Amino acid sequence: MHPTHPQQLGGAAAAAADVAAAGAGEGTRLDPWFGAYAQRAHGMRASEIRALFSVANRPEVVSLAGGMPFIQGLPLEVIGESMKRLIMTKGATALQYGSGQGDVELRERILEVCALEGITNAHPDDVVVTTGSQQALDLVTRIFVDPGDVVLAEAPSYVGALGVFRSYEAEVEHVPMDAHGLVPEALEAALVEARRAGKKVKFLYTIPNYHNPAGVTLTLERRHQVLEICQRFGVLIVEDNPYGLLGFDREPLPAMRAFDDEGVLYLGSFSKTFAPGYRVGWVIAPHAVREKLVLASESSILSPSNASQMAITTYLDTCDWKGQIKSYRELYRERRDATIGALAEYLPSATWNVPDGGFYVWVKLPEGLDSRSMLPRAVTERVAYVPGTAFFYDGQGADHMRLSFCYPTPERIREGVRRLANVVNAESELVQLFGTSAQLDDDPRDAEYPAPNLA
Amino acid sequence: MHPTHPQQLGGAAAAAADVAAAGAGEGTRLDPWFGAYAQRAHGMRASEIRALFSVANRPEVVSLAGGMPFIQGLPLEVIGESMKRLIMTKGATALQYGSGQGDVELRERILEVCALEGITNAHPDDVVVTTGSQQALDLVTRIFVDPGDVVLAEAPSYVGALGVFRSYEAEVEHVPMDAHGLVPEALEAALVEARRAGKKVKFLYTIPNYHNPAGVTLTLERRHQVLEICQRFGVLIVEDNPYGLLGFDREPLPAMRAFDDEGVLYLGSFSKTFAPGYRVGWVIAPHAVREKLVLASESSILSPSNASQMAITTYLDTCDWKGQIKSYRELYRERRDATIGALAEYLPSATWNVPDGGFYVWVKLPEGLDSRSMLPRAVTERVAYVPGTAFFYDGQGADHMRLSFCYPTPERIREGVRRLANVVNAESELVQLFGTSAQLDDDPRDAEYPAPNLA
Repeated sequence: MHPTHPQQLGGAAAAAADVAAAGAGEGTRLDPWFGAYAQRAHGMRASEIRALFSVANRPEVVSLAGGMPFIQGLPLEVIGESMKRLIMTKGATALQYGSGQGDVELRERILEVCALEGITNAHPDDVVVTTGSQQALDLVTRIFVDPGDVVLAEAPSYVGALGVFRSYEAEVEHVPMDAHGLVPEALEAALVEARRAGKKVKFLYTIPNYHNPAGVTLTLERRHQVLEICQRFGVLIVEDNPYGLLGFDREPLPAMRAFDDEGVLYLGSFSKTFAPGYRVGWVIAPHAVREKLVLASESSILSPSNASQMAITTYLDTCDWKGQIKSYRELYRERRDATIGALAEYLPSATWNVPDGGFYVWVKLPEGLDSRSMLPRAVTERVAYVPGTAFFYDGQGADHMRLSFCYPTPERIREGVRRLANVVNAESELVQLFGTSAQLDDDPRDAEYPAPNLA
Repeated sequence: MHPTHPQQLGGAAAAAADVAAAGAGEGTRLDPWFGAYAQRAHGMRASEIRALFSVANRPEVVSLAGGMPFIQGLPLEVIGESMKRLIMTKGATALQYGSGQGDVELRERILEVCALEGITNAHPDDVVVTTGSQQALDLVTRIFVDPGDVVLAEAPSYVGALGVFRSYEAEVEHVPMDAHGLVPEALEAALVEARRAGKKVKFLYTIPNYHNPAGVTLTLERRHQVLEICQRFGVLIVEDNPYGLLGFDREPLPAMRAFDDEGVLYLGSFSKTFAPGYRVGWVIAPHAVREKLVLASESSILSPSNASQMAITTYLDTCDWKGQIKSYRELYRERRDATIGALAEYLPSATWNVPDGGFYVWVKLPEGLDSRSMLPRAVTERVAYVPGTAFFYDGQGADHMRLSFCYPTPERIREGVRRLANVVNAESELVQLFGTSAQLDDDPRDAEYPAPNLA
């Protein structure tokens, strides 16, 4: 959209207006390769929602949208010094091609991290290092999903995972959650129904801890129930766990992978507990699956970055990484409290859960409001969130929004929720007067392609 | 293959034997998810060839197989110091999520690099930063290729590109080359034939400079001919150019992208001119294609590593990168000379080209020899190469091998070629006695999945 690039204009309000104009003009741009794209690329287009988020990154906007960790909390001097030593002493390895599966030293360290969540039955051979756990999602979907295959996912689910499933032309079926996480009876019902309809369910995609966006955690009892159900139906579990170590009030529950090394693919990441800028995640997989993941990863990127992997290993070796996670937990708890406090004070007409870990609060709007069509007004009022529709495959979720408390300071969070309350109140008046709020033109499902700031 | 992992055994010979045993046993390993894989994953299995290369990395083996640049030539002290400053002064950005398209400062620097090859008609908005140019190949194929679509590629072509095309179930049709590169008349004939057969040709994949593996360069006159033909047939060109700045005797020819900003996707990389360990490459694409590439990349990895991108920008800003490329050119010319000299001295029964840049010599074996079935014997004799079959989609190429001169010292190259000559001579005697050499069991096309050390 460079002809009306929002960054070049003054003020969030003007920028938001221009985004709408650019969106409307999109159809007139000629693409000489229009007829040459693959089937899977037909749905790939930037939505208005996506363009709005480029505005939301402006400093005057309080962004409750992004899942960016608070990097400023890291000991940058210590990390810088150790990076220098890494290049000077091991540069010939760090700057070279590495193994497709990933560096073995890092794979050993990864298992030490996983042991904190009960995974003690894995070998470094079972680990594949990926370019963030997003790449793990991509590779897993690539090797398992043919067009039309079914993936089960919580309702709601992670926007970036839904984007991957869509790009491989999967059908996603949502399974309900409640305050205790995924509902096992609903999972079983979905599997029975899929079997009855003759559909192939390739895996259950689940985020058991401090769910993105719902904020809830699957209880220990339900973990065993979910495992039992999936084993019985012969369905693989993809356990995505970026937030498991970021609980505010208690030690982590054991990962499902701790109880089943054949039926669970476990995805982990250093993005939330250390730093996303190195793009290092991993998957733990049974032998035969792991071999295919490595081949698929080599086809995709040859090998993960040695420099990044060795930077992570160096960090784990030279810094108090457990202490850092502890201080992150305290920081994020304080921000969670600020969010909940501000919601109670400014937005009592909404309802929400109180997450005990992670980055997100899932807010239900007052009756009749549409979080997606309200977003341009919110950005104009200098506050951003992610509309609930982003977390569903089918356009549901307009009655919810995700608020992230990971990045802004508590003061900024309060200010952001205050602005949000103004928007909600103004929108509620409109709805009461006219019976409906403004609508966006594009397809709500377009919002589901992941942008990095929605991670 | 961990039950008989080659690295744990003594001696390259024993290891090579064990690799064969492990390969033979592969079919007996039970995979509970065997029935669940996607169609595209069915061909994904590790070949015997691939296992042999893990042996080829042992220090006693002279590897003329890998495309690893000689990183030891870099100023590691200077780079280490600048990495420290980067983290300490810009760590909060370097360690954070970045933009899906890539950092704009790096995209500006990339265009300065591209200008050295005549590309002065591009804007930073046209550049997408990728995790090595392998990811660019993956993304381009992902957005353009449906199963059964045709990709045209030189005969031979880059093993890693063939692996990507295979993973998206493309049909690759090879177009002949001669000493002046891709033959335009053969390209036109292939396009006419595809049109006649009702096949969809999605793009021509070409490596115009110091071809991998053939070592030849497309002449300026032919660049214009290839452009004219592809424009006339409405076929996109994917111009893959990792080696263009590594000519030994002359300045680079202009890239085809310099003459056509709508019909060419240009792929570049810092892996051969600086360091592959950061995994930073790029693609320059017309607007609408670029937008889809960014969305596909976000689905695949969210965003390229900020730490890696800023490391490259810092290197370009603080080091004499043009001087470094000049010293690489001299280093690789010396190694090319060592390879050609040793071939003339030890292996006069073979024939080869004399590349004037890049990393590779393409050697034709004496009549009746099979480079693929000879490889286990070569590894036993402590020398490795890549069999010609790896560079074809259809099992051709057994009469050729690729020798890489980028990594070993001239002395080691001479020793490697001497060992290779012994293997060739022994194998020739066998062929004269029995009329044929030993055969490997697996499908020659398995060799085409790229392993990082074949880049």
